[in-house]
Amino acid sequence: MTKTAEMQKASLRWKKAGLRVVLVPTMGALHQGHASLIRRARRLGDRVVVSSYVNPTQFNRRSDFRKYPMRPAADLNLAEHAGADVFFRPRSLYTSDASTWVEETARSRGRCGDRRPGHFRGVATVVTKLLGIVQPDVAVFGEKDLQQCEVIERLVRDLYLPVKIVRHPTIREKDGLAMSSRNLRLSPRQRVLAAVWAKAVRVAAQERGGAVPRRLRRLLQNVSGLRLEYAEVVGRHLCAAAWLGSVRLIDNRKCGLKR
Amino acid sequence: MTKTAEMQKASLRWKKAGLRVVLVPTMGALHQGHASLIRRARRLGDRVVVSSYVNPTQFNRRSDFRKYPMRPAADLNLAEHAGADVFFRPRSLYTSDASTWVEETARSRGRCGDRRPGHFRGVATVVTKLLGIVQPDVAVFGEKDLQQCEVIERLVRDLYLPVKIVRHPTIREKDGLAMSSRNLRLSPRQRVLAAVWAKAVRVAAQERGGAVPRRLRRLLQNVSGLRLEYAEVVGRHLCAAAWLGSVRLIDNRKCGLKR
Repeated sequence: MTKTAEMQKASLRWKKAGLRVVLVPTMGALHQGHASLIRRARRLGDRVVVSSYVNPTQFNRRSDFRKYPMRPAADLNLAEHAGADVFFRPRSLYTSDASTWVEETARSRGRCGDRRPGHFRGVATVVTKLLGIVQPDVAVFGEKDLQQCEVIERLVRDLYLPVKIVRHPTIREKDGLAMSSRNLRLSPRQRVLAAVWAKAVRVAAQERGGAVPRRLRRLLQNVSGLRLEYAEVVGRHLCAAAWLGSVRLIDNRKCGLKR
Repeated sequence: MTKTAEMQKASLRWKKAGLRVVLVPTMGALHQGHASLIRRARRLGDRVVVSSYVNPTQFNRRSDFRKYPMRPAADLNLAEHAGADVFFRPRSLYTSDASTWVEETARSRGRCGDRRPGHFRGVATVVTKLLGIVQPDVAVFGEKDLQQCEVIERLVRDLYLPVKIVRHPTIREKDGLAMSSRNLRLSPRQRVLAAVWAKAVRVAAQERGGAVPRRLRRLLQNVSGLRLEYAEVVGRHLCAAAWLGSVRLIDNRKCGLKR
């Protein structure tokens, strides 16, 4: 389905019929992390909508937007197999004269918010649009994007939107790398470094307090081809971002757990 | 009703039952203009919610907020007589850590938007919250606040909110003054000037093109105690604002009509 009006009509009809609608918003390039979100959504309601939209306003770098992986046919297949009722792929969510922005100004500060100016404004705006179109009772987001979860939970609370936000645990490759569509852009050598990165995050998170980010910095300081962007403990999580060439990866782990 | 959760629950229940919910958002101090909005709402749906909330974030002057008239008992009475099913008077729509803002950046420019910094951001934010809580099928706004209608229509379109915005014509006193809660703050002498102002807007709008604002300026230039803030033709309307002491009045009239 690509038409917003048609999607909204279908969803409002389901709700009138007493059905529980669950939304899984994605930017396409679906992987097993998404499949897990969709299976979770399946258990949470009666109709599962998987949206696929590469939102231009949340990319602070034009090149990152241009290079974002796209494979709609494979996506449709994966979404259906994981249990989606509707694969919603709007052509655009911004008319040429669109002029409305949603901005969350507290939880968007720090971490990715400081390093990607405008990113969370784009996220908040597009998520509000998707919630407007689909009117879900529940929406499922991956914990890999932890700050995004925090921003959206705050937005939904502040705007009194009648939707429950469910956080779903990060799904990882066998070597521990958090699944992400951007992993597709890694060279074979970078893919090896990405596993080193994921392990370093896991190991550093076993420390306590101020030692956590220090440990991560030390673990990665001699890894060439990898640049740590930030490492911070927020609440009970070590949150970190790193660059491998032109690919930026993020990850987070609960602190103080042996794994 | 004062609880947002209770209001939302009632509204969602009505909608599940197939009832059409209509919202009339107000800032209280209800007058016959509001009564007319509520009667219109009554004809448009099955359940009419009148909200009353003096939204602090849309006042760019602290003193204007402090002096805004309040009379909840009379309001409840007027709303019920005009046909409201629920008089929704939330205590606050901002928790102390509220951090989400909705901003419309095109139609909020010019006219009141330029003279009242932050005003339409406050309006857009609170209207999005009220639409979130009440989930109406229709919301009715007075055309006296023409730019506000334009901003809200754009916001609803951009965020794909499933609500129809209905503009309701301005209701006037016998001498032509547009009804407004702020009229209560006029002294007897200012009330006379306000009628002069309303007549000048009506007469000037009978001109055509560039002559319209010029005529209004000329009509008001020698009226002492009244300061014209702006006069502009936007689309087919003469839109204007004026100060009478510390009270700011706005009005608009369709151009080129003899009345």
